[in-house]
Amino acid sequence: MTVDREEYSVPGFSAAAVATGVKGAGKRDLSLIVAQAPAVAAGVFTTNLFPAAPVVIDRERIASGRAQAILVNSGCANAATGDEGEHDALRISRTLAGHMNIEDNLILLASTGVIGHRLPVASIEQAMPSLLSALRVDGIAEAQEGIMTTDRFPKIASRRCMIDESSVVLCGIAKGAGMIEPHMATMLAFVFTDAAVEAACLDRLLREAVGQSFNAVSVDGCMSTNDTAIMLAGGAAGNRLLKESSPSINHFREALASLMESLAVAIVRDGEGATKVVTIRVEKAASVEEARHIAYFVANSNLVKTAFYGGDPNWGRIISAVGAGGVALDPGRVELFIGGHLLFSKGQGRTERQDEIIEIMKRPEIDVTIALGRGRSAFRLYTSDLTHDYVTLNAHYHT
Amino acid sequence: MTVDREEYSVPGFSAAAVATGVKGAGKRDLSLIVAQAPAVAAGVFTTNLFPAAPVVIDRERIASGRAQAILVNSGCANAATGDEGEHDALRISRTLAGHMNIEDNLILLASTGVIGHRLPVASIEQAMPSLLSALRVDGIAEAQEGIMTTDRFPKIASRRCMIDESSVVLCGIAKGAGMIEPHMATMLAFVFTDAAVEAACLDRLLREAVGQSFNAVSVDGCMSTNDTAIMLAGGAAGNRLLKESSPSINHFREALASLMESLAVAIVRDGEGATKVVTIRVEKAASVEEARHIAYFVANSNLVKTAFYGGDPNWGRIISAVGAGGVALDPGRVELFIGGHLLFSKGQGRTERQDEIIEIMKRPEIDVTIALGRGRSAFRLYTSDLTHDYVTLNAHYHT
Repeated sequence: MTVDREEYSVPGFSAAAVATGVKGAGKRDLSLIVAQAPAVAAGVFTTNLFPAAPVVIDRERIASGRAQAILVNSGCANAATGDEGEHDALRISRTLAGHMNIEDNLILLASTGVIGHRLPVASIEQAMPSLLSALRVDGIAEAQEGIMTTDRFPKIASRRCMIDESSVVLCGIAKGAGMIEPHMATMLAFVFTDAAVEAACLDRLLREAVGQSFNAVSVDGCMSTNDTAIMLAGGAAGNRLLKESSPSINHFREALASLMESLAVAIVRDGEGATKVVTIRVEKAASVEEARHIAYFVANSNLVKTAFYGGDPNWGRIISAVGAGGVALDPGRVELFIGGHLLFSKGQGRTERQDEIIEIMKRPEIDVTIALGRGRSAFRLYTSDLTHDYVTLNAHYHT
Repeated sequence: MTVDREEYSVPGFSAAAVATGVKGAGKRDLSLIVAQAPAVAAGVFTTNLFPAAPVVIDRERIASGRAQAILVNSGCANAATGDEGEHDALRISRTLAGHMNIEDNLILLASTGVIGHRLPVASIEQAMPSLLSALRVDGIAEAQEGIMTTDRFPKIASRRCMIDESSVVLCGIAKGAGMIEPHMATMLAFVFTDAAVEAACLDRLLREAVGQSFNAVSVDGCMSTNDTAIMLAGGAAGNRLLKESSPSINHFREALASLMESLAVAIVRDGEGATKVVTIRVEKAASVEEARHIAYFVANSNLVKTAFYGGDPNWGRIISAVGAGGVALDPGRVELFIGGHLLFSKGQGRTERQDEIIEIMKRPEIDVTIALGRGRSAFRLYTSDLTHDYVTLNAHYHT
């Protein structure tokens, strides 16, 4: 995939990535994104009770609603490293703040890689001068490269929209690819915009968008210690400050939702070992929570995931997962559709369309709809299949 | 594994299995176990909301606390087959009752195999005369063979114990091997004893034993539509009727628990594609439910399961799963042991014993203990690893 660097520049931001040697063989593993002045900042973090050191630090710092730089290293998660890990993280942020001549609590950190190893502080500090001198307005794509671990392709997207008379741009980068589940497991995403946005409004918009994107995907049902989604709004577009009450709020909301969804789907498509993207839509549920619960229950069934991998039209496994999900549904009212074809209703299978279903199951993108017959709520999630490559990658990769 | 047929005979019971052609190539796929007179019966069934036809029928019949025969077919689950499936099941039970000249509600049924296909009624009925004439007092091992699907080895065990002055025997057979999770997924188990046991007491003993055995294993976190555990007590041993208040009740309870646990561990060892049995013990929990929840959460993490397969001492994945389990624990009080060695405490990894841990992770049986630091409750479960063979078996086997 060739990346148009021009498309991914955001006025007021510069970025770069360098190789510190941690990921080896000259691979870029340290990324920096800098706003020309303190930007309005919002963040959503893992709910894992063993958060990595950078998550602990960011949560505290982002409470101010302001940040100017994000430093991300890949190859070491700095998780389960105790007080020492926190000291390491604070130290590199202090060193960077010194180089940039800003307060260190304007710096946010993110890490991804092996759990339980100390951060390579010396290598990171040594790389900082060259990282800072490499900063370029069209460097976001390069920064994306620096945050990849087992990702097979870059995840970068941009959207434009109008706020009143001002054209603004949003650009996002993300990494997957294992440990992807509800609460955004080993997932990093950073979104930058030149729009001027009020802090409380930015926070709310980010949370909404995460709920419909990163919190609506599942690769393997695991939640990481490092998940982070951060958004910075620099304000260089010169628009009238965007608030909840602004007439243009929905343009911006839709652009952000579309951007984040495209990054989330890219993460699923690049799920470890994935060969298919499966959209699971649960509808006619009594509540969104119920729909969400069943969608995840089906998506995380290894028997369902392997059936998609094998291209086996094994709707019995889906029905079995629906029935095991703990929702008190009436089995006679449940309907299952694959690729738009009804396969199960009134408690029994409909086998008329078997040939078409076999064809549909071979496709790289499959739509599954489960109607619970209980109400009007719905939830849609994206998931991937469970493959030999997933096992190979995870049996031998030391996370 | 050679089976000593003598060891597995229970006075008052006979059994046999024949090939009906459903599983193909002359493989035994229809088993029958018969008591010489109506026996005291208890059963525990799947909680899946799409129970197979035989489960629906058995639940109703076993309410009487009596049964005389169990007919089990493998190759077709008779699940998601609607009213027709129930008619099919009732029809074969009626035919068998006619041959045996007993009431048809003394017959229990169980099925395992592909979901959504109609039962091969004609083949089953045709096989009945030869099945009945093959009944032998030492036929239980043969019946075990007839209930296997993807099982790689037979699961049969027996125990003896004293009730007052009478020696009694308990013999059990079971099948796995995929869809094994909490509530006994695609798991069939049948236990026979010559002890005389009061019906309410038998029911309670069976439920207790299932809770500590079949409901304490997980292969892939999936629950089937057909799970069934049935116990028949014939009474040929002539002991004084066993009740809750009997002085010997604990001998019998322990023998049953030990029998069922050995069958459950055999199911995990034979989990689809499994190369390892991992015992996960969660202790110092605030409640048994909490301990159980975390144990399953860790056991069902694909990242944990693949790490065991790869022999990777990746304790970070275990800690990450514990932290994602939704229990409000204090991360600083959590301790993790593998093979008795402390690997994580006070929020950080202990890497002193890395070499020993690498050795332990290579073993076919691994003990993991997670202390939550919250109370005095504990739960122990057995699980298996996630391997290439699991994916191969399930991507291409049409359940």
